[in-house]
Amino acid sequence: MIPYGGADDPLLHGGDLAAARRLFPGAPEPFVDLSTGINPNPYPLPRFPTALFIRLPQAAAASLLAETAARAYGAPSAAHVVPAPGTQILLPLVAGLVRPGHAAILTPSYSEYSRAAVLAGHNVKMVRGINECGDATLVIVGNPNNPDGRLLSRATLLALAQDLRRRDGVLVIDEAFMDVGPPGASLAAEVPCGNVVVLRSFGKFFGVAGIRLGFAIAAPTLAERLGASLGPWAVSGPALGVGAKALADADWIERTRKRLEKAAMRLDTMLTAAGLSIVGGTNLFRLTHTLAANALFRHLGRAGIFVRAFPDNANWLRFGLPANARHWQRLDAAIASFRDR
Amino acid sequence: MIPYGGADDPLLHGGDLAAARRLFPGAPEPFVDLSTGINPNPYPLPRFPTALFIRLPQAAAASLLAETAARAYGAPSAAHVVPAPGTQILLPLVAGLVRPGHAAILTPSYSEYSRAAVLAGHNVKMVRGINECGDATLVIVGNPNNPDGRLLSRATLLALAQDLRRRDGVLVIDEAFMDVGPPGASLAAEVPCGNVVVLRSFGKFFGVAGIRLGFAIAAPTLAERLGASLGPWAVSGPALGVGAKALADADWIERTRKRLEKAAMRLDTMLTAAGLSIVGGTNLFRLTHTLAANALFRHLGRAGIFVRAFPDNANWLRFGLPANARHWQRLDAAIASFRDR
Repeated sequence: MIPYGGADDPLLHGGDLAAARRLFPGAPEPFVDLSTGINPNPYPLPRFPTALFIRLPQAAAASLLAETAARAYGAPSAAHVVPAPGTQILLPLVAGLVRPGHAAILTPSYSEYSRAAVLAGHNVKMVRGINECGDATLVIVGNPNNPDGRLLSRATLLALAQDLRRRDGVLVIDEAFMDVGPPGASLAAEVPCGNVVVLRSFGKFFGVAGIRLGFAIAAPTLAERLGASLGPWAVSGPALGVGAKALADADWIERTRKRLEKAAMRLDTMLTAAGLSIVGGTNLFRLTHTLAANALFRHLGRAGIFVRAFPDNANWLRFGLPANARHWQRLDAAIASFRDR
Repeated sequence: MIPYGGADDPLLHGGDLAAARRLFPGAPEPFVDLSTGINPNPYPLPRFPTALFIRLPQAAAASLLAETAARAYGAPSAAHVVPAPGTQILLPLVAGLVRPGHAAILTPSYSEYSRAAVLAGHNVKMVRGINECGDATLVIVGNPNNPDGRLLSRATLLALAQDLRRRDGVLVIDEAFMDVGPPGASLAAEVPCGNVVVLRSFGKFFGVAGIRLGFAIAAPTLAERLGASLGPWAVSGPALGVGAKALADADWIERTRKRLEKAAMRLDTMLTAAGLSIVGGTNLFRLTHTLAANALFRHLGRAGIFVRAFPDNANWLRFGLPANARHWQRLDAAIASFRDR
């Protein structure tokens, strides 16, 4: 297999347990994986009928999924929704909606944004603020942002989109963590303005990252182009099977939002008590700052707890949510023993 | 959802049972779906551990899949193999390996080839023979071809690749049905020549089209570009779970080849006895010619048997393999009652 550029760096993305084991060969098992921002308590998996695995994904099921997603995310209609096998695969495609030119990416950000923009032929400039976008015709922002949780207001984003429209530019808003964002902050309903593409991730909030499901929400002309690039049968049978059910389950969604909020607060308490500063985050992860980040990363790793370090930011560590009482306990004990070294 | 161009035409692709039911509302259920070239007796599905659905697809599992696929398909190494969520999604990417120019597509062919080439910016010329490729810098052929089973020799394809190399062109060989092709006909081992890309479909032969799994086999430089476009986690957990196991199961593969060969011969006998001419095909489907194609399509449909018709070829019908004794019997009876109308 050809790793995409940099896939062999276990610090570039979270979630690779084999990499964790290579880094910390003597660590106690099972590893507690806090290296991602994925809900560790997944949506209850349905029994998947065998037909979902063996038959070609059915067009009617894909349409139902798009309709349900439109309602769940607040998109104007199913014609504005493009289901895909994960948002990852959509990134180069949305970057390719604009002719190669200048792309501005708000930093810090998910490393895949710049990679996708470069793949689509753009010159990428990493910018600290919206006002530095200059003559960019492609702007990609995470909202809320990973890893720091930065949240841009609707007004700011709509003004940016309007500015981009003057030079035929496109604004891509990755709302991968908007499921746990403040109500009303999503731009999904605003895509009819024509040059805004919203990305939504299914796997993170619903805790089923393995099935690969994500969505682009955009004006029908752009949605059509993205759908054409993916072609028929883009979303697998199992993803169709759980996607529409979960996105329509308003009770589970509401309960889970509350549960994740509580868990994130509990994590804050634990981390600040240990002397870490909370830089930001979302209710699926917290970004911390500490001068001892490197030592703590290795201390936790040796205790079988894998968190996310940042090659470009030596003082940052990102913590996902522990899955259960035992994991909370192990994190607590590992942090305490670090303090008492 | 945005249908890709033409997805709403139930005759453009097989496998859409809802479309069959719309066309033939009174037909007896369950429908016998012979509209695809997918093995109706799938590889025995393993029990999928929950982790495959919830965790990000693991890099180690993706590497193992690439290694197993390289051995199964006869590729030089795993560095020549790009696992993907189906070959469908690879088509526009492989067409994009060449700068926009003239693309030649050998006709008849799978309709998605020309769509993908147009998406990648090429001017597409449908050609009847290899000698008509002219100055094309991209040539796409199915080998064996769908729907007519046309098989090009290795020598012909290698000469074509050499010719294309002189003008920096690429030859794409879709070996979606090569699992049931003659031994030694695959070009997978020849990709080091540098400008040949072989596509292999997992879902058809193994009968699990719903999980979305396919491969590009190419020289490492091209493979790297394709892998970069797909990004990390392109293949879902369930696809990783069944893919490596099935591709290493030489016994099942051999048994299945023989079983499909027998089934295809049985289908020939049944169809020719009914007065249809066999135009060609593979051991996963047969293409027939009859002046009564349209009437037979509708007769079968009303009997709950869905076969593949061709908008551009009114006298053609393609038949997939019946799954079991009951389906064989229903096909036999429906054909007999057509003859005796």
